[in-house]
Amino acid sequence: MSKINYTLMCDFYELTMVNGYFQSEMRDQICYFDVYYRTIPDQGGYAIFCGLEQVIEYIENLHFTEEDIEYLRSKNVFNEEFLEFLKNYKFTGDIYSVREGTPVFPNAPMMTIRAKAIEAQFIETYVLATINHQSLIATKTSRIVKAAGDIPVSEFGARRAHGAEAATLGARAAYIAGAVASSNTLADRRYQVPAIGTMAHSWVQMFPTELDAFVTYCKLYPDSALLLVDTYNVIKSGVPNAIKAFNQVLVPKGKRPVGIRLDSGDIAYQSKVARQMLDEAGFPDCKIFASNSLDEYLIRDLIFQGAKIDAFGVGERLITAKSSPVFDGVYKLVATEINGEVIPKIKVSENVGKITTPHFKKLYRLYNRETNKAEADLLTVYDEEIDDTKPLEIFDPIATWKRKTLTNFRKEELLIPIFLNGKKVYNSPSIEEIRKYCKEQLDTLWDEVRRLEFPHKYYVDLSQKLWDIKYELLNQQK
Amino acid sequence: MSKINYTLMCDFYELTMVNGYFQSEMRDQICYFDVYYRTIPDQGGYAIFCGLEQVIEYIENLHFTEEDIEYLRSKNVFNEEFLEFLKNYKFTGDIYSVREGTPVFPNAPMMTIRAKAIEAQFIETYVLATINHQSLIATKTSRIVKAAGDIPVSEFGARRAHGAEAATLGARAAYIAGAVASSNTLADRRYQVPAIGTMAHSWVQMFPTELDAFVTYCKLYPDSALLLVDTYNVIKSGVPNAIKAFNQVLVPKGKRPVGIRLDSGDIAYQSKVARQMLDEAGFPDCKIFASNSLDEYLIRDLIFQGAKIDAFGVGERLITAKSSPVFDGVYKLVATEINGEVIPKIKVSENVGKITTPHFKKLYRLYNRETNKAEADLLTVYDEEIDDTKPLEIFDPIATWKRKTLTNFRKEELLIPIFLNGKKVYNSPSIEEIRKYCKEQLDTLWDEVRRLEFPHKYYVDLSQKLWDIKYELLNQQK
Repeated sequence: MSKINYTLMCDFYELTMVNGYFQSEMRDQICYFDVYYRTIPDQGGYAIFCGLEQVIEYIENLHFTEEDIEYLRSKNVFNEEFLEFLKNYKFTGDIYSVREGTPVFPNAPMMTIRAKAIEAQFIETYVLATINHQSLIATKTSRIVKAAGDIPVSEFGARRAHGAEAATLGARAAYIAGAVASSNTLADRRYQVPAIGTMAHSWVQMFPTELDAFVTYCKLYPDSALLLVDTYNVIKSGVPNAIKAFNQVLVPKGKRPVGIRLDSGDIAYQSKVARQMLDEAGFPDCKIFASNSLDEYLIRDLIFQGAKIDAFGVGERLITAKSSPVFDGVYKLVATEINGEVIPKIKVSENVGKITTPHFKKLYRLYNRETNKAEADLLTVYDEEIDDTKPLEIFDPIATWKRKTLTNFRKEELLIPIFLNGKKVYNSPSIEEIRKYCKEQLDTLWDEVRRLEFPHKYYVDLSQKLWDIKYELLNQQK
Repeated sequence: MSKINYTLMCDFYELTMVNGYFQSEMRDQICYFDVYYRTIPDQGGYAIFCGLEQVIEYIENLHFTEEDIEYLRSKNVFNEEFLEFLKNYKFTGDIYSVREGTPVFPNAPMMTIRAKAIEAQFIETYVLATINHQSLIATKTSRIVKAAGDIPVSEFGARRAHGAEAATLGARAAYIAGAVASSNTLADRRYQVPAIGTMAHSWVQMFPTELDAFVTYCKLYPDSALLLVDTYNVIKSGVPNAIKAFNQVLVPKGKRPVGIRLDSGDIAYQSKVARQMLDEAGFPDCKIFASNSLDEYLIRDLIFQGAKIDAFGVGERLITAKSSPVFDGVYKLVATEINGEVIPKIKVSENVGKITTPHFKKLYRLYNRETNKAEADLLTVYDEEIDDTKPLEIFDPIATWKRKTLTNFRKEELLIPIFLNGKKVYNSPSIEEIRKYCKEQLDTLWDEVRRLEFPHKYYVDLSQKLWDIKYELLNQQK
């Protein structure tokens, strides 16, 4: 399938800065940027990292066409030697990343980029837009799937997404985070997200009667008859007509209906009445699908009310993450490199939460060997080694008197190399593998971290060495 | 530039329905769908219609590749004759639309599609995703621009958009609705939205000192020196260093600085102090740019506080329409056609607001000839003619006793043909023309309709003939 060249999907200042570095003593300056986020959407306890595969595609496809360069030339701000240089521009640095589907926590790097400033700076905008978007949708979906418990959730929001790409990439992220399917056919075609769907109200309206519409559909799709029953009146006509159509078309053929779908009104009430009608008519196996402006809170409430629902279709509130539609991932300089030595850099702020953690770092996740639950993330300097055969004391980086000693734990390094010297060194997993990995990783979180409201705050701590460096740098500031 | 084939960006049920129509007596059924919306985002008084140009591209590019058809075949639900038919599938119907940039109101059609069901049904998902997204961003931007008054607003949100396409198309919508520029280079390259930008915090951090960073930048860009002054401390170091760099580099060359940018902290306070410092240093012409999680409410408040800001850069809250990130445009069957006769169709609902207005319709906007202000929108049956030389009585379609007589008005028909028999009959305007049209049309709205909170509700009424047909259809329902 054709690919768009997104090289120019960058904030214009990336270009003016890169043009500036190119003409200054910073031309070959190696630097390190971290991608991390600060705030968990919906005041939740974790986020799901997603979008790496599209970043990889972008990096591999990075190039300026002749026309792009001509366009830049027309701006009259770029150095001619720089424009020439762009003809063979490519990414030659290193990228480390956590795997897609990994639960991630505020202020811990999800990615680290080591490259010349003229490369590392340039990719900021696309990397952030991609990671922020897919992580947002994966995180929201994870909450919705959690609320639904054993009831499967499908992503139905394409028409309300922020355009066709947001719909399709959002469907990918939703599937990774636990949705079982999407309504979006392109998400299936491109990313192997199973696409599902049967009929809209217009199908029912198109025929002379609701029964005609149902009978026609059952005849055409005897193996996948799922009827939308709320075009006129669910209880008075929709469910009775569905039962008639099932009896008239499917039963004589020895076929069973798949289900009915409720899409408006009081779904809790309707589902209970419909369940009873279907059971009494001899269709206890006919499932009830529900879809109407659902989200994790409404789903929790429907389940609490004892609604008889077998599957949820979730639309606009998932695909736009409506209640919290911004994922605030940032891209911050954390170090430079001079003659092979890494020089940590800090960005201070009056808001303590906005101060960066400097340096080229490792990110360890520490799991209890007995429970297999994640106990904490620990950031260390790149050259530190954590010994997981001995007890380890960790401490809160702000309230440093809060200390905890971990015993019987195992470590895992989360940032793994994706590109080294511009060469991809990572085998991209299939979407099914990512989805499975995501589920496994979520299972390592305590329920207290995963609950929808007032979750327990997961620890993201610094090693003593890293903490010392950070506070030394802070104290050096005027 | 390469284009993506979005033909498969459709809900899977569009395909199952179309496959169903193809195999039933509905194969050649002509029908009419309206695109309209129900709820104005942010409880505002109007929305801005946007995205038509991308719908046109989609319609013209609509086709199934061999691989698409192979993919569909693998689903084992589609009729073989239908799959063959898809090889030469294209849109052969009519599309009417309001122009991009038009203020639009709930329940009035923004587009009408007349085509065979197998075509009209199919395009639903892409049309909605596109119109909903761009209308959302245009509407949000219009509010922000309104709040900013004479102070220009630029769109700076690419990194927080729902992916690269949402960033780029969102920048287009923002420009149409009154933003003056975007940070997104691709929006400039593709859609001629002026791209702007100078430096990030990383530029300042990369150099040994803030002053070095500023001096280098001024040397490189003496004609566009706009310095980000909040990396360390705005008042103690940022502004003093900016002034030093201006004096050191620009003044000797007879150049003037463009400005400084504030991006964190108390922007109202900082802007006042910075203004005074710049004025006293002999740079009263140096502008102050502000950008930090702004939206229409914060901008209004900054202005109210007397902040000394000359330009706003608005990021995530614009590009995601954060406070109201869903535009609820729908695509509803309103009529079918049998032997040339239009048969109105209605979709009832227990929620009165969700009942469709049936029939193939005209949408008139009625302007007062004296004030040039829009007084009301009037929906009529397609074969009605409004006479604007005589007084016209209009009435509220729900509270029918509320009546008003318009005199001295002129009419304008808002739905104009875009495609007829599958052929484009519309000359797409340039983005500058659309932007100008949008501004002109906004000027026809009363301030009471445009205000940010508790706006006056604009009238969208039905002609007597259309009202009679709607209520006759409603009464026919059981």
